[in-house]
Amino acid sequence: MRDFLPADKAHREHVLSVIRSSYRAHGFDEIETPVVEDSARLHSGLGGDNEKLAFAVMKRALTTEDLRTAPDPLALADLGLRFDLTVPLARFYATHRAELPAVFRAIQIAPVWRAERPQKGRFRQFVQCDIDIIGEAGPAAEVELITATVATLEALGVSGATIRVNDRRILTSMLGIFGFDTGDHESVLITVDKLDKVGVEGVVAELRGKEVTPAAVDALEGFLQRPASGERTPFGVAGIRALTPEGTDEEVIAELAAIGDAVNSVYGTEVVEFDPWLVRGMGYYTGTIFEVAHPEFGYSLGGGGRYDGMIGRFLGTGVPAAGFSLGFERLIDAVHVADTTGTDATALVHDPDVPLAQLAALQKQLIAGGLRVRLERKPRNLAPLLAQLAASGFSRFAYVTAATTDASELEFRHLD
Amino acid sequence: MRDFLPADKAHREHVLSVIRSSYRAHGFDEIETPVVEDSARLHSGLGGDNEKLAFAVMKRALTTEDLRTAPDPLALADLGLRFDLTVPLARFYATHRAELPAVFRAIQIAPVWRAERPQKGRFRQFVQCDIDIIGEAGPAAEVELITATVATLEALGVSGATIRVNDRRILTSMLGIFGFDTGDHESVLITVDKLDKVGVEGVVAELRGKEVTPAAVDALEGFLQRPASGERTPFGVAGIRALTPEGTDEEVIAELAAIGDAVNSVYGTEVVEFDPWLVRGMGYYTGTIFEVAHPEFGYSLGGGGRYDGMIGRFLGTGVPAAGFSLGFERLIDAVHVADTTGTDATALVHDPDVPLAQLAALQKQLIAGGLRVRLERKPRNLAPLLAQLAASGFSRFAYVTAATTDASELEFRHLD
Repeated sequence: MRDFLPADKAHREHVLSVIRSSYRAHGFDEIETPVVEDSARLHSGLGGDNEKLAFAVMKRALTTEDLRTAPDPLALADLGLRFDLTVPLARFYATHRAELPAVFRAIQIAPVWRAERPQKGRFRQFVQCDIDIIGEAGPAAEVELITATVATLEALGVSGATIRVNDRRILTSMLGIFGFDTGDHESVLITVDKLDKVGVEGVVAELRGKEVTPAAVDALEGFLQRPASGERTPFGVAGIRALTPEGTDEEVIAELAAIGDAVNSVYGTEVVEFDPWLVRGMGYYTGTIFEVAHPEFGYSLGGGGRYDGMIGRFLGTGVPAAGFSLGFERLIDAVHVADTTGTDATALVHDPDVPLAQLAALQKQLIAGGLRVRLERKPRNLAPLLAQLAASGFSRFAYVTAATTDASELEFRHLD
Repeated sequence: MRDFLPADKAHREHVLSVIRSSYRAHGFDEIETPVVEDSARLHSGLGGDNEKLAFAVMKRALTTEDLRTAPDPLALADLGLRFDLTVPLARFYATHRAELPAVFRAIQIAPVWRAERPQKGRFRQFVQCDIDIIGEAGPAAEVELITATVATLEALGVSGATIRVNDRRILTSMLGIFGFDTGDHESVLITVDKLDKVGVEGVVAELRGKEVTPAAVDALEGFLQRPASGERTPFGVAGIRALTPEGTDEEVIAELAAIGDAVNSVYGTEVVEFDPWLVRGMGYYTGTIFEVAHPEFGYSLGGGGRYDGMIGRFLGTGVPAAGFSLGFERLIDAVHVADTTGTDATALVHDPDVPLAQLAALQKQLIAGGLRVRLERKPRNLAPLLAQLAASGFSRFAYVTAATTDASELEFRHLD
């Protein structure tokens, strides 16, 4: 877990505010849930492998003796830090449904925790930016999620990103056509999910090592290499058909094509791309799945999909839902938006004998004029102070003496 | 711990953004620390009674067996949720001192956790807004902290608040003059701290029940009733002297008067008030202490003071420091600032047959014009949808049919 120093923190807050206002502009509403959830809820099977990474939180006032003599000490750790924002959202929706719109568009921008060994690009505390649409069963939800995400990336100045889309039902339909037993689908998809890392040869080799129908692996191999040209296939029904075997679920193809066409017609033909081999790890996806790919990064900048079954688990009745999450910690490195809120930052470098009331009055006067103002007592050696101010984003300074009684008397000097 | 629905969350985020930009305008820099700190650090004695309220967080992958067989199971809970922002700041400063300005002005706006029984105005997860100045030993720090706080309350539209100030050294000096043994000071101050709740009679009665010098209680009693008129005493050296016994530390009186005079001369004579009986619970205060009082609230909206010894505990060398914290959860009820960011929120109520691409294009066009836009499929019964949109802060809507191909064709209707 990391500390954030002023420059980093300012950059993070600025990027978050751009994301927040872009999502809000697209009609989404921000909500917040506690960082701690009941342990039972976090371990309900909806969080997949991440459940194992939940930090356990204990009830208060537990002594060593309490723990040692308890028949089930872990039961005393009955809370946990959330490992994602989807499980809390499902719980939130189940609790507050009556107060929410029929179609609820949620923004969640908040930290989550995973007790894993820190590694490059992974942290034990990190921020997720999620949007979800609950209560909309049709592809309108997917179009809104993808357009809001694409517009947000644009607002952040991140260009060149592609949204890869697929549908779990297309994967299932294809695997059936190739001849894989239904019971093998999950295992086959785990291997296919490695396509980006190990390539076609790697996937095929791993599948041949598994006890799955050899003929089905042969059939799959042919399609893994499409398009043979390496060219980008245009979206639309024809494009999807070209990359999938004959007999693939036509209804799903039509729905996916409608989503891709809608986004591409508004945001440019290069934005959404059909990827028949996109799998996404989480088991709760039931329909569309998407991922943000960027040529400069070897990992996705975000992802999401439709998870129609999940909220029903908390509510006892089916509720359609789909969401899209931006990986903030990955995104932050890709973002170079100028934060102009500090451009008028001014330091008042004052003699030690200037009365405190006079300094406070000058500061108040300049702040009222829209400036950011820092008071600095003049040190013996001025250069390090000025360098440090410039590094902190201050653009100018002025000297203040006991004779300076009004801001109009200040002479501003440029800092750089 | 609470969920925040859209209207509450929007209000909270707006108030936080006002606080953040006001503090920034006063030259403070925001930082962030992880919510989890090492247990040993949280229980180092610097957090006072709050240490007992720290939620313990366990290392991952601990089984019931791990806990049952461990010689000291609590040692496995080697992390904890922070209970305030001051202990993490001290740790942060000790870690990053070399990268920070000589006088470091920190903003921390973040949640803290206390495992106490929820009651009115108290929550297990709540947000604190702290500013701290580290590295400035003189009263300039106090003036900056108080003016930034007063200006922030003004920016929030909270009027009528008073900053009560005192100094720990005045309390100590007075108790000595009254004739209390040094060893009894802490116990006497715990009782005096209840003055607002139990009145002069209650305080005196409790002190007479304690084993403290009776003559000292008599001497104290006379001063507890000053000013006899109930009138507000003007600040300044004369005002402080009128409320304290002869012989009270003159140097401290002069310093306190300088702070109060500077703030009052800039922000109005009513803003800062000397209160010789202000104690503040935390043991780490070493000099000035302050509290935000408001006639409409029976509790303080914030407080702070000088804690010169604390950071040295982490760093091994003395570092002067002072801070001021606003109690965000208490403040939020007092704040009625208009958030105008939603005034142009517009709903596009569309027929079910409007193509998704057309809706996405219209939304994009309106967002580019600065609007917040939500797409809503036209339901059979329109009234509940329109009522819900108005309640969510949407100010207008327009119908969209398959024939609507450009935003200029939209007819906006007022929602209320």
